[in-house]
Amino acid sequence: MKPVRILVTGGTIDKVHDPYTEALAFAADGSTQIPEILHYGRCHFPVTQVAMMLDSLNMTDDHREMLAQTIRAATEDALVVTHGTSTMGDTARYLDTALKGQPKTVVLTGAMRPFSLFHSDGPFNLGGAIIAAQCLPAGVHGVMNGRVFVAGNLKKNTDLGRFDV
Amino acid sequence: MKPVRILVTGGTIDKVHDPYTEALAFAADGSTQIPEILHYGRCHFPVTQVAMMLDSLNMTDDHREMLAQTIRAATEDALVVTHGTSTMGDTARYLDTALKGQPKTVVLTGAMRPFSLFHSDGPFNLGGAIIAAQCLPAGVHGVMNGRVFVAGNLKKNTDLGRFDV
Amino acid sequence: MKPVRILVTGGTIDKVHDPYTEALAFAADGSTQIPEILHYGRCHFPVTQVAMMLDSLNMTDDHREMLAQTIRAATEDALVVTHGTSTMGDTARYLDTALKGQPKTVVLTGAMRPFSLFHSDGPFNLGGAIIAAQCLPAGVHGVMNGRVFVAGNLKKNTDLGRFDV
Amino acid sequence: MKPVRILVTGGTIDKVHDPYTEALAFAADGSTQIPEILHYGRCHFPVTQVAMMLDSLNMTDDHREMLAQTIRAATEDALVVTHGTSTMGDTARYLDTALKGQPKTVVLTGAMRPFSLFHSDGPFNLGGAIIAAQCLPAGVHGVMNGRVFVAGNLKKNTDLGRFDV
Repeated sequence: MKPVRILVTGGTIDKVHDPYTEALAFAADGSTQIPEILHYGRCHFPVTQVAMMLDSLNMTDDHREMLAQTIRAATEDALVVTHGTSTMGDTARYLDTALKGQPKTVVLTGAMRPFSLFHSDGPFNLGGAIIAAQCLPAGVHGVMNGRVFVAGNLKKNTDLGRFDV
Repeated sequence: MKPVRILVTGGTIDKVHDPYTEALAFAADGSTQIPEILHYGRCHFPVTQVAMMLDSLNMTDDHREMLAQTIRAATEDALVVTHGTSTMGDTARYLDTALKGQPKTVVLTGAMRPFSLFHSDGPFNLGGAIIAAQCLPAGVHGVMNGRVFVAGNLKKNTDLGRFDV
Repeated sequence: MKPVRILVTGGTIDKVHDPYTEALAFAADGSTQIPEILHYGRCHFPVTQVAMMLDSLNMTDDHREMLAQTIRAATEDALVVTHGTSTMGDTARYLDTALKGQPKTVVLTGAMRPFSLFHSDGPFNLGGAIIAAQCLPAGVHGVMNGRVFVAGNLKKNTDLGRFDV
Repeated sequence: MKPVRILVTGGTIDKVHDPYTEALAFAADGSTQIPEILHYGRCHFPVTQVAMMLDSLNMTDDHREMLAQTIRAATEDALVVTHGTSTMGDTARYLDTALKGQPKTVVLTGAMRPFSLFHSDGPFNLGGAIIAAQCLPAGVHGVMNGRVFVAGNLKKNTDLGRFDV
């Protein structure tokens, strides 16, 4: 078993329903849902680290650079990055360039429906990403909806509501 | 994307609650829950085939031989087998021998808690197995609870209630 | 058993998550979630009628007059009205005046969290409202979060995120 | 608002899935799921008391006598009793006789599917029972699946899988 680190950046997978505003938003205390997904998946070995908690539409290259530095500094070589679906591909391509030559396998994943709403694709996607981070060679990939994408091909299909070729 | 075939053999992942008998059992019509897991995972490309619908304690080597023949006959080279947790390792080792030399990547998976009860590890495990079937070389593996096991090491940890080293 | 009619007007209880827009909204086909709540509650005798499908902030006195006419015309004397939480009390007070002297027991209810998101208060509230419609005398009441309110006292406690005294 | 006491006696509503034995059973620590149902129903005022934790097939008249004494001793006049479905009617009729002349409104309820499995009728039934305990006159009733039953008529319809006339 390879040690795996999960870097949380926010995105739909981590949103919760706020009954006061009736909106989907991050938890008021900034906490992440990822440990609960791991708990129900009975998957206890990855380390979870909240790097930032952003809607991916608000992710800038400054955020991406910070993320690349966090990945370089990690003791693990297998990393999963949870990310919003809108700009997941942009971050993948940024990291692909920024981490060139690094011995790191980085797998981006997320969800089309928040985990906290049930019937989410989050557990299915995260389960796939954790396996991919252990199986794939060094480089940046995305895992969504049962598929593996190289960074250059990672893009939400907004017509179908999933990641697809 | 590699074409993936999912062979259903039953097991806990496919059990449902029967309010009449108050027991967990397979659906009376023999149907499987796997397409519903794929639906919520927004994963539409694998073919699902019910090979048998068994509690894994009732799986014999005759069943395993039938499964090996079904795998050999499949047009896909990437196969996921859903299976009960009690004898998943035994089936993996049987298939490992029976499929020696075949160009097939076979990944066994299942769940400790039925999918139909929610909070199941089934979507997390199946999401991982479908990725592993596309990433791993030919051979028989198991994917449970975030880990990849070679056939020889696949065994439920009954003390911890999960698959572990 | 008294025959019960459920009049659907929309509100949070009926919202679903749209993965394309990432918003909570009514189903694109205008359908209601109430029959599914009844199905899981194993409660098959009420008649469900969609009167309108509105966010309660958009409910006007014209809508309320239409609702009063639908109630007067109903063959049942026990009626449940599902309604958004923001103006539930206003509608209750309007109906209380408009239905004066009618032999109708009207019970308004709804939810703080959409039914489709699970962990919703919808089933708990609807289960209470259907019982109240059979037990209470003619008049307009609200049932939310385990309490019965006369029309004059029905008001969301926005600080506590529930209906309370 | 009338103060309400909930007396827990066990039954299907309180069963959880044990992944080690793959059976439905009460939690190993004897704890009840009722506070969690109340939490999601945003219903915070009832007092919950575990009187016993039994499969209703194991409920004897000694248990029922203990329950009658607990009800007589309660400071509240509105009581909900959670109970297994198999002998709910027998307990209702025992209490009906034992509590004759007492100023207590007692409402039995439960579920055909455990709350912990989701898609349970438990929240719908408990929401109804709490309202009935506040609305009905003194006496013993049952509330299941949207209906109110007097003690004499309370009986599971095992063919339909619900409580029905």
